[in-house]
Amino acid sequence: MKLDYALLTDLYQITMAQGYWESGKGATEACFHMYFRDYPFKGGYAVACGMAQLAELVEGFAFSEEDRAYLASLDAPGGGRLFKQEFLDYLAGYRLSVDIDAVPEGTVVFPHEPIVRVCGPIMDCQLIETALLNCVNFETLIATKAARVCQAAQAPVAEFGLRRAQGAAGGLWASRAAVVGGCASTSNVLAGKLFGIPVSGTHAHSWVMSFPDEISAFRAYAEAFPKNCILLVDTYDVAQGVRNAITVGLEMRARGERLAGIRIDSGDLAWLAKMARRMLDQAGLSDCGIVLSNDLDEFTIQSIRDEGAQVMSWGVGTKLACAYDQPTLGGVYKLSATREPGEREWTDRLKISESVGKLTTPGVLDVRRYFYCDNGRLAGDMVFDVNAPGDQSREVIVDPADDLRQKNLAGLCSKTLLEPLARDGRTVLDAAGRDAQAARARAQKGLALLDESQKRMLNPHTYPVGLEYGLFERRRELVARMRGIA
Amino acid sequence: MKLDYALLTDLYQITMAQGYWESGKGATEACFHMYFRDYPFKGGYAVACGMAQLAELVEGFAFSEEDRAYLASLDAPGGGRLFKQEFLDYLAGYRLSVDIDAVPEGTVVFPHEPIVRVCGPIMDCQLIETALLNCVNFETLIATKAARVCQAAQAPVAEFGLRRAQGAAGGLWASRAAVVGGCASTSNVLAGKLFGIPVSGTHAHSWVMSFPDEISAFRAYAEAFPKNCILLVDTYDVAQGVRNAITVGLEMRARGERLAGIRIDSGDLAWLAKMARRMLDQAGLSDCGIVLSNDLDEFTIQSIRDEGAQVMSWGVGTKLACAYDQPTLGGVYKLSATREPGEREWTDRLKISESVGKLTTPGVLDVRRYFYCDNGRLAGDMVFDVNAPGDQSREVIVDPADDLRQKNLAGLCSKTLLEPLARDGRTVLDAAGRDAQAARARAQKGLALLDESQKRMLNPHTYPVGLEYGLFERRRELVARMRGIA
Repeated sequence: MKLDYALLTDLYQITMAQGYWESGKGATEACFHMYFRDYPFKGGYAVACGMAQLAELVEGFAFSEEDRAYLASLDAPGGGRLFKQEFLDYLAGYRLSVDIDAVPEGTVVFPHEPIVRVCGPIMDCQLIETALLNCVNFETLIATKAARVCQAAQAPVAEFGLRRAQGAAGGLWASRAAVVGGCASTSNVLAGKLFGIPVSGTHAHSWVMSFPDEISAFRAYAEAFPKNCILLVDTYDVAQGVRNAITVGLEMRARGERLAGIRIDSGDLAWLAKMARRMLDQAGLSDCGIVLSNDLDEFTIQSIRDEGAQVMSWGVGTKLACAYDQPTLGGVYKLSATREPGEREWTDRLKISESVGKLTTPGVLDVRRYFYCDNGRLAGDMVFDVNAPGDQSREVIVDPADDLRQKNLAGLCSKTLLEPLARDGRTVLDAAGRDAQAARARAQKGLALLDESQKRMLNPHTYPVGLEYGLFERRRELVARMRGIA
Repeated sequence: MKLDYALLTDLYQITMAQGYWESGKGATEACFHMYFRDYPFKGGYAVACGMAQLAELVEGFAFSEEDRAYLASLDAPGGGRLFKQEFLDYLAGYRLSVDIDAVPEGTVVFPHEPIVRVCGPIMDCQLIETALLNCVNFETLIATKAARVCQAAQAPVAEFGLRRAQGAAGGLWASRAAVVGGCASTSNVLAGKLFGIPVSGTHAHSWVMSFPDEISAFRAYAEAFPKNCILLVDTYDVAQGVRNAITVGLEMRARGERLAGIRIDSGDLAWLAKMARRMLDQAGLSDCGIVLSNDLDEFTIQSIRDEGAQVMSWGVGTKLACAYDQPTLGGVYKLSATREPGEREWTDRLKISESVGKLTTPGVLDVRRYFYCDNGRLAGDMVFDVNAPGDQSREVIVDPADDLRQKNLAGLCSKTLLEPLARDGRTVLDAAGRDAQAARARAQKGLALLDESQKRMLNPHTYPVGLEYGLFERRRELVARMRGIA
C-alpha cells in the first residue's frame, strides 16, 4: 500500500522548502524531535508505534513528475504561480538526506521525552514533518489504547473497529497498532495480509436474519465451521439464543465436534454473560466459552469483570479503533538545534511560549532510561543532549514542567532509547524492526517492568521523566537570554 | 490511491460468504440500508459524504491471486484451514453484482433515513459492508463537522489537521470531506492533487526559529512570497511579532507589494486578534487581515466572533480532522429484506432489539423529502418502501423511535433522495457525481433550506423524519408476529 508520501504533507512545508532553497538556507542543518506533552487517556504510560510506517515513508519519498506537474499548476492567491520552475526542477532530483533515530515500536514512553529525532538539512526535516506526525501520533495513540484495554481484559482481545475507523488506511494501521499494544487479533483481513498479524471473526446478525429461524442459521454455521464455531445469540432474544446454541452445541458434541463459544453483542453484558454461563454449565457445555462485544472499552471491561462475569475473549471495536475518548495524541515536532555548513557545534534553538509546559528543549537529544539492576524495574527517564551528556556523578533529572520535581538516579543501571531508523535518507530498519509481533512482545515486557501504581486506570502515579540537570540549566539560561533580547 | 478493497473487511464477512456459498444461499437476494441513529455532535443535521470513495470501492473490488493465497494460508482456530479451496477458486472469478443507491454527496441528511441502499446477492452485500461503513461513516462525520465549523466561522476556513488525523488515508478523505462540508481549502497537498480541491498554507514557527531573529525571517518570507505573504507572529512574543510584521508590511508597501495577513496560533486569540487589529490599523495596514488558528472548533470560533474579533480567515486542524468531540458517526448497515431465486416479492427482515430506537425497518426503502413549493424550504422526510409507496392521499410520517410524533405532509412538493451509484456491480457515478466542489455547493444549498432553529449549535429543533404510515404499521405488525413466535 504505497502512498505518495512526498505530497502527504501540509502545503506550508513545501512553500517553506522553496523559501529555504531560495534564501540559501538549504544547507543549514537542523535537528527536530517529536514528543507529546500529556499522558493519553489520563493514564500513566504510552506505547510507541508508527516507526514501521515511518520507515516506509522514508523509502517512498520522492517528487514524481506528476507531483511536480501538480505543484506547478498551483496559483498564488495574490496572482502568478505559487512555485518557481527552478525549485520544481530541483525537486525532480531531490532525495531525502536525514538521519532518523526513534524508539523501537512497543517501547513504553512518557510525555516530554523525544520518541523520534530527525537531523539533516532543515528543508528535508520539514518535508517529512507532517507525515511523520500523522503516523506516529495516531499509531502511538491506538497502541496505547489497546494496551489499556488488554490490561483491563486479562483475556484475549480481538480488535474489530474497521467499520468505525477514520478512513481505510486509518483502519489498517490502527489494526496493526492495536496488536502492538496487546490485542490478540484483528478482524481486518487486509491488515492481516499486509502486516502478518492474526485475524479472527465469526458471523453477524445478518447471517441469522437471512435464515427462516435462528436455529437453522446456527446449524448451518456449525456445519460450515465445525472447528471454529462461535454463535452470535442476541439477534432476537438472548435467552432463547443461548437455548438454541445449546441445542446445536449438543448436536455438535454428538458428532464429535465442539461448540467453541457464544457471543453476546447487546444488552447488559455482565448480567447476560452470567446467565449464559449458568445455562451452558447446566447443559453440560462448560467447555463453551463466552465472547462479549458492543461498545466496550477498558472501563466497561473492568466493570464487567468486577461483577464476576467469566469471559473467554473480548471483541473491541469503535472505542479502540478511533480512541473514542481521546482521538488524537497531540504529539509535536519541534526544532531544537541548527548548524550552518562548516560549523562543528550545534546552536540551540528554542520556542518560548506563555506556559512552561509548552517550552521546547534545545539540543540534540536522546533518552536514558534508568532501571534497577537486579530486577529491571524502571526508575526514571533522563532527557539529555548527546553532545553534552552531563556529569555522570550527578545523575539528577528535573521535571521540565515543574523544576521542584527532581530525582537522583545515580547508581542505577541505564540504557538509551533512540535507535537508528534512517541514515542519510535511507531506512536502516530491518524486517525484525518492523515486525508487529516483536513490537507486541516488547510492549508486554516493558509494561511488566512498570510499577502497578503507574498502570492504574484512574489517577496513576506519575513516572519520573526529566531533563539532565545541565540541560535544564542550559535551557533556563537560554530563556533568560532570549527574554532579555525580546 | 487504489486500495485492496476486497480484503478491507472484517474476516467474518468472508467466513459468512463461504457459509452462504456452502449452504446454497449464494443466490438469495438481500437488501441492506446504511443509516445512523443519532445526530452527530448533538446538532440538527448531517452532511452526507463518502459516495465517491464508495464508487472507487465498487470499481476496485476483486480477490487477486495474492489475496486468495493469503486467505488460503489462514488456519481455523480449531485446526485445519479456515477456507475451503473450492470457495477460494470461486472467489477467483468473483465479481460484485450489487445495485447501490445513495444520496448524492453534500446532501443534508438526518437520523433514521437510509443514505445508502445495497441490493443484490446476500454474499455480495456483506462483502462490501465493512468498507462501505468505513468510508460513509467517517466522511459524513467530517463533512458534518466542517459544516458546523464553517457555519460558526462566517469566513473562509482552511482545514489543516493532517498531522493529527487518524492515519494517512484518514487524513486524505478527511480533507476532501472537510471541503464538501464547507471548508475553503486544505493544507493537505496530496488531497489537493487527488481530489482537485484548493490547498493553502504559509509558514511555521520553525521558519522563524531557523533565522537569527524574527524580522530577518519575516523579510526572507516576504521576499520569497511577495504575492502571498501571511506572517506567523507568535513564535516569541505576539506584540513584538506584530510590530515586526508591521515593519515588513510597510517595507512591502514601499515596494508596491502587500502584506496579506498575519497569523496568531497561540494565546488568547480573541484578545490578541483585537490588539493586532488596532496595531495594524494604527500603522495604516488596514488591508492586512488576521488569520487565527490553534485548537479551534465551532464553539471557540463562535466565542471569538462574539467578542468582536475581526478575522479574515480561520485555520482549523485537530478538532475538525478527527472530529474530536465525537470521532465516529456510528452508522449501521442492516438487512431489511430478502428474496429467494424465482420469487417476485421481497420478504421483510427485522432485527428486534431491547430498545425501539435500535429496531430496524423492513423493506426496500427510499426517502421522500417534502418541501414548500414556493421557497423550497424543507418540511420533513418520509422513509417509504419503494414497492409499497403508500397512499398518496395520506402523507403522514411517524417517528420510528416515538410513534406519538407524527406529521402530515400532504400537499407539499417532494422528491426522492436515493440516486443510482452502481448497477450490477458496475459504478454508474460519473465525474460530476464525484466532484467535491459540486458536493460542497449542494451542501451549501441544502443547509440554506433548513430552518435556522434546526442549525442551532445547542439543542437544535429536530427535523421531522418518519416512516410512511403504512410502513410504520407493517413494522409494528411484524414485531408483534415475531414476538409471538419467539
